[in-house]
Amino acid sequence: MPMNIEKVFADTPGKKSCIHLNNCGSSLMPQSVLQSQIDHLELEAAIGGYEAANKRHDAIEAVYDSVARLINCHRDEVAVVENATVGWAMAFYAIPFQAGDRILTVEAEYASNYVAYLQIAKEKNVSVEVIPSDENGVVSLETLEDMIDERVRVISVTHVPTNSGLVNPVEEIGKIARKHNILYVVDACQSAGQMPLDVEKIQCDVLSATARKFLRGPRGVGFVYVRSSVIEQLHPPMIDLLSATWVSENEYVLRSDARRFENWENNYAAKLGMGACIDYALEIGLDNIQARINELADYLRNSLRKIKGVKLHTLNPNQCGIVTFSIAGVESADAVQTILQQGVNVSTSSPASTLLDATKNNLPVLVRSSVHYYNDHQEIDKFINIVRNIANS
Amino acid sequence: MPMNIEKVFADTPGKKSCIHLNNCGSSLMPQSVLQSQIDHLELEAAIGGYEAANKRHDAIEAVYDSVARLINCHRDEVAVVENATVGWAMAFYAIPFQAGDRILTVEAEYASNYVAYLQIAKEKNVSVEVIPSDENGVVSLETLEDMIDERVRVISVTHVPTNSGLVNPVEEIGKIARKHNILYVVDACQSAGQMPLDVEKIQCDVLSATARKFLRGPRGVGFVYVRSSVIEQLHPPMIDLLSATWVSENEYVLRSDARRFENWENNYAAKLGMGACIDYALEIGLDNIQARINELADYLRNSLRKIKGVKLHTLNPNQCGIVTFSIAGVESADAVQTILQQGVNVSTSSPASTLLDATKNNLPVLVRSSVHYYNDHQEIDKFINIVRNIANS
Repeated sequence: MPMNIEKVFADTPGKKSCIHLNNCGSSLMPQSVLQSQIDHLELEAAIGGYEAANKRHDAIEAVYDSVARLINCHRDEVAVVENATVGWAMAFYAIPFQAGDRILTVEAEYASNYVAYLQIAKEKNVSVEVIPSDENGVVSLETLEDMIDERVRVISVTHVPTNSGLVNPVEEIGKIARKHNILYVVDACQSAGQMPLDVEKIQCDVLSATARKFLRGPRGVGFVYVRSSVIEQLHPPMIDLLSATWVSENEYVLRSDARRFENWENNYAAKLGMGACIDYALEIGLDNIQARINELADYLRNSLRKIKGVKLHTLNPNQCGIVTFSIAGVESADAVQTILQQGVNVSTSSPASTLLDATKNNLPVLVRSSVHYYNDHQEIDKFINIVRNIANS
Repeated sequence: MPMNIEKVFADTPGKKSCIHLNNCGSSLMPQSVLQSQIDHLELEAAIGGYEAANKRHDAIEAVYDSVARLINCHRDEVAVVENATVGWAMAFYAIPFQAGDRILTVEAEYASNYVAYLQIAKEKNVSVEVIPSDENGVVSLETLEDMIDERVRVISVTHVPTNSGLVNPVEEIGKIARKHNILYVVDACQSAGQMPLDVEKIQCDVLSATARKFLRGPRGVGFVYVRSSVIEQLHPPMIDLLSATWVSENEYVLRSDARRFENWENNYAAKLGMGACIDYALEIGLDNIQARINELADYLRNSLRKIKGVKLHTLNPNQCGIVTFSIAGVESADAVQTILQQGVNVSTSSPASTLLDATKNNLPVLVRSSVHYYNDHQEIDKFINIVRNIANS
């Protein structure tokens, strides 16, 4: 079924007040996602927070089913957590590293993950090694294969980096990881909601994502998938009475499902909002969403390429909805301010968020724009005009 | 200034639909707290999540000032986190334990904290030791003093346990901790919002609390205080690009303030709601709040004592707003269902949540009620009637 774009527009209250091209930061919620949160908060105020959670128990549990449908896993392999980083960290820090182990990651790895590697490297005496990228910025699969030995404990990859439209070949990496029986962690923070994700095709053991980005959900909620076959070997870095049961003076027992990576208390309004945003995306269809995002992003990139002085940060031919660039002679932070003042939401991407990639490619602070399926050509044209004026001024 | 109780009632929409005596679970939000969240969510839907956070930057920053006023600390000593347990754990797991170190805690310690001690004990080869309580259930200060030697790394205490109105003598314990220069951690999850808290009087180094309980705030948000003089020695168990800056291929630098215990992404609506609930409490005054809670709780306890078959779990004369009890011949879970059906919110307290105390005192599952300042005698009378009917049936 094709996308009903008129309904999409009508469902998106923010379309009235801004042109939102900051979807890889946090995208505009559909009305249903907003309302699901407001309804729950009002219920909490009316009957109490625990009582509201009890009353909405089935709907809250259904959030796990929604995540499972989104990424093709079992609901017991899902932990709903504060955000993608927390989910990723609860699983990653749970890996029982031994001294001498190797962590393999990618050049465009996200800062939050990388500092975690460095912390673990220091504490556990393991090494962090970067799989080189080819001339297109894509992970070199051949080199990855060459790097593998019995000391590689985990391959950990960001699917779509924060600073460009690059899409890493997560399925091809997954084949290599599976072949060598190596734990495989995928940060899908920027891909969830803008393209289909299937953990069986990716063959990953851990996959983390957040609601607020392309899933169009609330801030402060995300999820982590952990494959049932690896849960038992992962001991969360912090536990509480949800993840572990206190059974005697000196003993506790960890939960056997992925909720061992959760903790007891959370924001149920946001959790329900995440369920609503996933259901909304599934209803439209991730294939439909991806097709429209790619079409709009290609249009945006092609239009930007025609502006003199604009330099796109796009090495890879396989691009998604994130479009980053610089404008000759203009600080990106200043450009973003000018763009914002004209009613278009974009942001900057700083070298520190993807330090290795930024260093290798001499990247300055970039202007970061990102389209979603609820954007349209008219909005992009207005944005292009603004950028053209900045570049020509 | 005395409390304007009519205004308090009018500010509490939930008063219309229920009698809420589950305040130690999650209390009813004032309208202003509810509205602050709804306003922010609507702003996010209208202009984008990041843009809304930018627009409300000053208000979000002011939340740290509100926490600082609540507990008498500096705003740089505050981390706003997902909940009290996360705040507590981010600080506690950050303690650089050495093999042979001792953790001292209390009999009525909360399960979430205790399983964390057990995990750390196993991983770091430290011991967990319980400071005995006297016949009133109160931590024995003399015995604590006797237990101290140079191997005691931390004294970690729950201020008000989840399963009774007991108030541990945190200031007296603090004197002993300070005298011996021992790190002192206080879990104030059940005390914040129902009594004044002053980290200078308590002399604690870490104090954690949640918004949803007696502070009348949102679910899924809390804070942890970490004294500036100890921040530097505490290395968070998990880091990200907020808590640490990635400065070169092999280096990161931790933040120097308490936000090293935060992570980047969170639910800003809930954060603003926590600010609003703290401001509301401060406006009424914690002394006023405590006085009214104590008066109502005494009335509740005295009324319950008159019912044949009701047994209160109250050893300590120093009681607060939590009142737990059992009814002879009736399962507490069944009693709670009957009470709920008649429009009064209470909950159960299970032995597993305070295992050592429950084992020592042979506690069954208890009925747990808890009063707040927005409750009144009429509500308590109705509750007492219900309990009397259950006990007599």
